[in-house]
Amino acid sequence: MLGTIEEEPAQLLTSQRVAQLNRGDKPFHVILSQQFSREGIEQLCRLSEMVRRINDDREGSQFLRGTLSHKRAMLYFIQPSTRTFLSFSAACQVLGIPYNEVRNPSTSSEVKGETEDDTVRVLSQYFDLIIMRHPVEGFAERMALMLNGMRRPLPIINGGSGKDQHPTQALLDIYTLYRCFSPRGAERGAATRGSERGAVPRASDRGIPPRFPENFFSGKTIAFVGDLKRGRTVRSLAYLLCRYPGVRMLFVAPPELMIGDDILEYVTRYGIEYEIRHDLRPVIGECNAVYMTRLQDEWDVAGESKSIDYGRYHITREMSGDFKPDLAILHPLPRRHEIDPSLDALPHAKYWEQVRNGMWMRASIIATIFGVDTAITDHYHSYYAH
Amino acid sequence: MLGTIEEEPAQLLTSQRVAQLNRGDKPFHVILSQQFSREGIEQLCRLSEMVRRINDDREGSQFLRGTLSHKRAMLYFIQPSTRTFLSFSAACQVLGIPYNEVRNPSTSSEVKGETEDDTVRVLSQYFDLIIMRHPVEGFAERMALMLNGMRRPLPIINGGSGKDQHPTQALLDIYTLYRCFSPRGAERGAATRGSERGAVPRASDRGIPPRFPENFFSGKTIAFVGDLKRGRTVRSLAYLLCRYPGVRMLFVAPPELMIGDDILEYVTRYGIEYEIRHDLRPVIGECNAVYMTRLQDEWDVAGESKSIDYGRYHITREMSGDFKPDLAILHPLPRRHEIDPSLDALPHAKYWEQVRNGMWMRASIIATIFGVDTAITDHYHSYYAH
Amino acid sequence: MLGTIEEEPAQLLTSQRVAQLNRGDKPFHVILSQQFSREGIEQLCRLSEMVRRINDDREGSQFLRGTLSHKRAMLYFIQPSTRTFLSFSAACQVLGIPYNEVRNPSTSSEVKGETEDDTVRVLSQYFDLIIMRHPVEGFAERMALMLNGMRRPLPIINGGSGKDQHPTQALLDIYTLYRCFSPRGAERGAATRGSERGAVPRASDRGIPPRFPENFFSGKTIAFVGDLKRGRTVRSLAYLLCRYPGVRMLFVAPPELMIGDDILEYVTRYGIEYEIRHDLRPVIGECNAVYMTRLQDEWDVAGESKSIDYGRYHITREMSGDFKPDLAILHPLPRRHEIDPSLDALPHAKYWEQVRNGMWMRASIIATIFGVDTAITDHYHSYYAH
Repeated sequence: MLGTIEEEPAQLLTSQRVAQLNRGDKPFHVILSQQFSREGIEQLCRLSEMVRRINDDREGSQFLRGTLSHKRAMLYFIQPSTRTFLSFSAACQVLGIPYNEVRNPSTSSEVKGETEDDTVRVLSQYFDLIIMRHPVEGFAERMALMLNGMRRPLPIINGGSGKDQHPTQALLDIYTLYRCFSPRGAERGAATRGSERGAVPRASDRGIPPRFPENFFSGKTIAFVGDLKRGRTVRSLAYLLCRYPGVRMLFVAPPELMIGDDILEYVTRYGIEYEIRHDLRPVIGECNAVYMTRLQDEWDVAGESKSIDYGRYHITREMSGDFKPDLAILHPLPRRHEIDPSLDALPHAKYWEQVRNGMWMRASIIATIFGVDTAITDHYHSYYAH
Repeated sequence: MLGTIEEEPAQLLTSQRVAQLNRGDKPFHVILSQQFSREGIEQLCRLSEMVRRINDDREGSQFLRGTLSHKRAMLYFIQPSTRTFLSFSAACQVLGIPYNEVRNPSTSSEVKGETEDDTVRVLSQYFDLIIMRHPVEGFAERMALMLNGMRRPLPIINGGSGKDQHPTQALLDIYTLYRCFSPRGAERGAATRGSERGAVPRASDRGIPPRFPENFFSGKTIAFVGDLKRGRTVRSLAYLLCRYPGVRMLFVAPPELMIGDDILEYVTRYGIEYEIRHDLRPVIGECNAVYMTRLQDEWDVAGESKSIDYGRYHITREMSGDFKPDLAILHPLPRRHEIDPSLDALPHAKYWEQVRNGMWMRASIIATIFGVDTAITDHYHSYYAH
Repeated sequence: MLGTIEEEPAQLLTSQRVAQLNRGDKPFHVILSQQFSREGIEQLCRLSEMVRRINDDREGSQFLRGTLSHKRAMLYFIQPSTRTFLSFSAACQVLGIPYNEVRNPSTSSEVKGETEDDTVRVLSQYFDLIIMRHPVEGFAERMALMLNGMRRPLPIINGGSGKDQHPTQALLDIYTLYRCFSPRGAERGAATRGSERGAVPRASDRGIPPRFPENFFSGKTIAFVGDLKRGRTVRSLAYLLCRYPGVRMLFVAPPELMIGDDILEYVTRYGIEYEIRHDLRPVIGECNAVYMTRLQDEWDVAGESKSIDYGRYHITREMSGDFKPDLAILHPLPRRHEIDPSLDALPHAKYWEQVRNGMWMRASIIATIFGVDTAITDHYHSYYAH
């Protein structure tokens, strides 16, 4: 099947979509995970490490806050989300980019009968970037194409659209995996309990590697656990992981909530090994990472989630004897009962760090869109990497 | 009638009101359109052009963001308005003035039984400027007078009060008309499709004219179309246009929604020629500008708008054959069906640019209130006008 | 009773609580009034005077806005409060600390079934400080202890929790009393009507006294009036005033709303003289300060406030003949009918100034937590105190 990718209409369609969203080979809008090559992902991860490091002292953070202080961003969050909203707004603050927000459409002029297209056209007059979270699948992409046709086009970042994609979450997830699987990761984690400073690479680390090893994720087993059908973060992360030959995926979900066939086909097309499972307990010992998700019952049509035994998709204290030493537990949050809070104290628990990683990754994405990634890299190398 | 203006009690009343709102001949509070002389209007338009130009590069925008970074503004928006709110907040960001907002009175301490006068007194302790949008006619003016009596008076800008006035909208509207009718306007518009940079005057324009020609609007026909009875933007703009002898106004509205007699008297008093019409189609060919408005049925008492044939107050693709070459279509937005979206692509469509103009104009108003207009003008002349 | 304080279990408990919230003898979290020694209170009052003075010109305010521009704050306001929210956010703006807010829990991820502990854990990843207002008694303190156990602990400021405490309000109240009772206070007040500049100490004042006299509040009668049972600001201020031997307190309230026995015991333990009264009229002539409060009927269980004659706890124009010359009227606001608005014009009315004092005091508290109080003091002495 691999040899025929280019002829697949669906694949052609994706590459056409990517071409409309990129400028050259660089994302202008950030809408789909498929816009990111492995090299693009690794550049963003390296940049995130630098942003984190530079922000760690007063002078560095003031440098960062000057990089985009001449731009302005709109956070158009029609689908409620405290977490993602705060992550993006914190990222904007890190880069000094003033932002504004539209969160509650009922206070907006939609009550006066305006179309949402017009609302976005108006926003495009005030701002230099729109970060958009919307319940309708494909809305962010459609708006990106609409703005491409305006006199003053400006980039859109998809902060989650419908049940479809959530590319910035996927990028922060893979950044977290990079940190967990890097040899210094474990060391750092152990050495620096109680101190944030230690959790970032130091001058004594002699900088961030210019390349990650080719086989970085090779041989790693990553389990996606829970409501994989309606969790768009899983979908977006699966797309990204297909850039890494040799990774192995476990999809652990109730049959009713199993991941979509489109993802399984995509994974197959890239030659990634995967397994379908319906219980976490028997496979936990094989995992290098588990990506836990909550039951997304807000998408239920007729309460169908109620009949599901979701307990098989919980990770518990009792399983911890089987954990591999380097097991990393991730969760896009919010959690319900999937992760026993008593696990929070274990070094395997990476979900709080994952939250903080999101702020650095989103700052890196925004910096890259505006082309100030080079200035940040230069600053990093002058100050920290000698 | 013209000779007796000074003796008119209503006129005296207005001049007394203006005297309480101005300091010297300069607005301290910005409440009424009638506070602005033609010279004042033109100064604001010129300043808007400079702010726009200075903001166009990184160094310039950082200069602007230092001009008011030592002040703080309150956006007190009790009447919902995404558009005006964002325009003012973007203007604050352009000038670097930190702001805060009160938008939803139900989350405020009014639930604890406080009067709104006390709320404004409290706000006056924290901020240096209050921008106010309120459903009650005259509220902003009453608060301005109340604050005049406090120990630490501070300016109020009226961002729309009741069905009465919306002076900053009128100022951005007239700024848009200035840009549309200036000889370079058309040129610029044609040359710069697809590039914002070109839409602003460049160093190669050799600066902004120190004076606009005396007869600037003379011979221009400007049609106000739609719900003129309840559209406060129309009222406020009509006041300003009375500063321009030789302009001709068409009021095109259903009889039930015709503009108030107070405006017609004011226009007459200033010797401005006007006509009352009930259908746009027959007069579209005479217009240099049309100012479209939506049906403001949120002010309906008993659904009286439903019986009106509002189609006569739409501008359509089919009319475009009759458009004068320089016809400018404006709309305070949001629009419903008054403007066919297919017109958006024509050079006549100025309503998106009008939105962006609002940001520059509001920044200029705020800068002028705080007396930093001179610093901006000086900066402009040192950098761009040699 | 005084000799046995150290053995009192309740007192031991408080000192243990304080030890968990302080680092060394300095507050890390700001949760309880009891964390503040007299020396700590006076340092904050002096710092507030300096912040106010430095902020008074453009260069000074820009210095202040650089002091914490590398940090970020979260205003987690689950209990609605415009006033306290704006006071804290203005304080953040004075120090240049970017902030974000969570105000409406229904738009948050709690709808997705997250615990509030997890919400606070997430916030702790994005921010350097959490300012928290919450309807549940003890919530802020519990969160402070939880965060002490995280890898990256960060300070919490209690902006009001349940019916219990509101320490920053108490600090701004006592700061207001300091200003009212200082000999220059009256002078300044009289001399500077109509000018804010005059209301702050000037270079010609030769700086702020390095120490306040030992007997500063000695012989002063301070009346707490109204709903003392449910007004947490009164409770918190009473704790602070116990640091001042020789002060005399009047608790003027209906029997049903009298202050709690725990406060009376605390006051007794510190040897403070107090009286219980049920009518303001007969005692108004004895007062150097009256601290008015509104009826907090939002805490009523079954409308029990309706049967109370609250008129006895109003201060009226008719009483003004009995006012001592230096009487200061305070109110934490919002007010209802407790203070006749005609009193606003009298020099005794300090409640608007009290609002503005809150901004300076909260800025001082935040500055102190982050250890930039020294930099501010140094700046003050270089520029103003020679």
